[in-house]
Amino acid sequence: MLKIGIDAMGGDFAPEAAVKGAVMALGEVGADCRILLFGDRERILAILAAEGCPAEKFDIVATTEVIEMGDHPAKAFQSKTDSSITVGFGYLAKGVIQGFASAGSTGAMMVGSMYAVKPIEGVIRPTISSVVPTASGRPALLLDVGLNVDCKPEVLAQYGVIGSIYAEAVLGIAEPRVAVLNIGEEETKGNAQTKATHELMKAEGDAGKFRFVGNIEASHIFSGKVADVIVCDGFVGNTVLKMAEGLYRINKALGVDNPFWNSMNYEMVGGTPVLGVNAPVIIGHGCSTPLAIKNMILSTVRCAEADLAGKLKSAFNN
Amino acid sequence: MLKIGIDAMGGDFAPEAAVKGAVMALGEVGADCRILLFGDRERILAILAAEGCPAEKFDIVATTEVIEMGDHPAKAFQSKTDSSITVGFGYLAKGVIQGFASAGSTGAMMVGSMYAVKPIEGVIRPTISSVVPTASGRPALLLDVGLNVDCKPEVLAQYGVIGSIYAEAVLGIAEPRVAVLNIGEEETKGNAQTKATHELMKAEGDAGKFRFVGNIEASHIFSGKVADVIVCDGFVGNTVLKMAEGLYRINKALGVDNPFWNSMNYEMVGGTPVLGVNAPVIIGHGCSTPLAIKNMILSTVRCAEADLAGKLKSAFNN
Repeated sequence: MLKIGIDAMGGDFAPEAAVKGAVMALGEVGADCRILLFGDRERILAILAAEGCPAEKFDIVATTEVIEMGDHPAKAFQSKTDSSITVGFGYLAKGVIQGFASAGSTGAMMVGSMYAVKPIEGVIRPTISSVVPTASGRPALLLDVGLNVDCKPEVLAQYGVIGSIYAEAVLGIAEPRVAVLNIGEEETKGNAQTKATHELMKAEGDAGKFRFVGNIEASHIFSGKVADVIVCDGFVGNTVLKMAEGLYRINKALGVDNPFWNSMNYEMVGGTPVLGVNAPVIIGHGCSTPLAIKNMILSTVRCAEADLAGKLKSAFNN
Repeated sequence: MLKIGIDAMGGDFAPEAAVKGAVMALGEVGADCRILLFGDRERILAILAAEGCPAEKFDIVATTEVIEMGDHPAKAFQSKTDSSITVGFGYLAKGVIQGFASAGSTGAMMVGSMYAVKPIEGVIRPTISSVVPTASGRPALLLDVGLNVDCKPEVLAQYGVIGSIYAEAVLGIAEPRVAVLNIGEEETKGNAQTKATHELMKAEGDAGKFRFVGNIEASHIFSGKVADVIVCDGFVGNTVLKMAEGLYRINKALGVDNPFWNSMNYEMVGGTPVLGVNAPVIIGHGCSTPLAIKNMILSTVRCAEADLAGKLKSAFNN
């Protein structure tokens, strides 16, 4: 039996949105998967009752504290020992659950990832990634999207390994094409960082670590024609993601309505996986709706079902 | 009388597209502006005749060579002394024309800008910029868009001055808001480069050099809500521009049709101004259509009419 933990207290509209999202997810996760809700038992039960959902469909882990957005992430993670996030990470670190997701404090989620679950041995710096839609209909993975800026080429080259494993195991893309985001197709193009990264990743590709296809220009991030895994510095990845969000909002205001742009909606994205740590952790958008929470839960389940963490550990401990 | 030079031989569809674009521009430039066409006299005359445009509407500067896309830019600029680009830059450097534009070899245009027209004294590194549309209907200026990567903060701070002058003089935006593209609104956010740039630009803003409004996140590049001049490293700016191009193409394929996305079309953009050199130089897209050429010519005229180069020289030689 797979067990997945959800922070019922995380997000601007918690616990309502989180619990409703969990109820929505119920119909889509298999019978061999159990969802644990971490949070205020009475409030969770009240929402389940209002939704007409039997409480026994979930395991409720009662917690009494909440890490608020204004809290100092590291301090709150340590001092609020009975917070939904701290308790959730405790379960995850002990292996009671095989994945944990929250739309709450991103900072506290990162603290839990780095200090409770911990980086996989051999991974220089864990990363946060984003699944982006492409015009081809197939998703692509962009990483890093904001955790690590001024990345060393060695760090980016590892993201090729991590991204490739994620794309294959979780997104179901066979032999994913891995590329470096760069400002030209030729390998001599770019800044100091991307030139060095290209060289390293080419060598790793030649060594069979992943299918390296070279540079990808930003014009092709969303075309799906060049790569399934797009590696970049966190500054650049964050810029790409925020620019997409901004254009999505403009399009929405303009009444643009088509499957490509609709799938750009953060609600459909399923949260941001923290990759390179010892167990699946997914961070949701603060303003997550029930639909966004549902998709975040499904992402977490897929990571756990695919034994993503186990695959990453094998890759870095050969 | 203002004189503007156009490379009739530049671009994938030259000389037809270039000459047709010049004819289209005729109706929109004032009577006190004369367009000089640099290129193959016979072919230019034939196209003008076919367009039903009297040849005396233009001055034709007959040249016999063309710098091709495959040529080494610096070598060709020197050896093809009778090429339309080399001759055009000769006219520009001597002040016979007050602006020069081409959709031909970008490399040769940069060589001409740097070695014939030369950087303005005090400008560390000239820059290439792009006018981008915003949802507010007002354009914004993004710089650098690919000439300089791994920029020092001092270089980026100068782009605040250059961009501010361009936005005011050429785009007609009073007291333009200048921002650094960054991954957070707070001044402590960013990578080493943007943090240092923020600090420098804040000091320059306080000193009255331009109206500094702080950081802008990529979600607001196209909203128009935060800034009119957006300063960034060439790697990031090029990524933003190419991503916009890619999404424009996806939208076009999806049938999205609205004024915002239509104005994202490179044909409407009017080319890429090279800024920080002693005279206006505009580089057009290689695949420029007559409409794109027309807008490139109008941009060049606006730069010349506004005495952009004179204003930049004053700013850097105080």
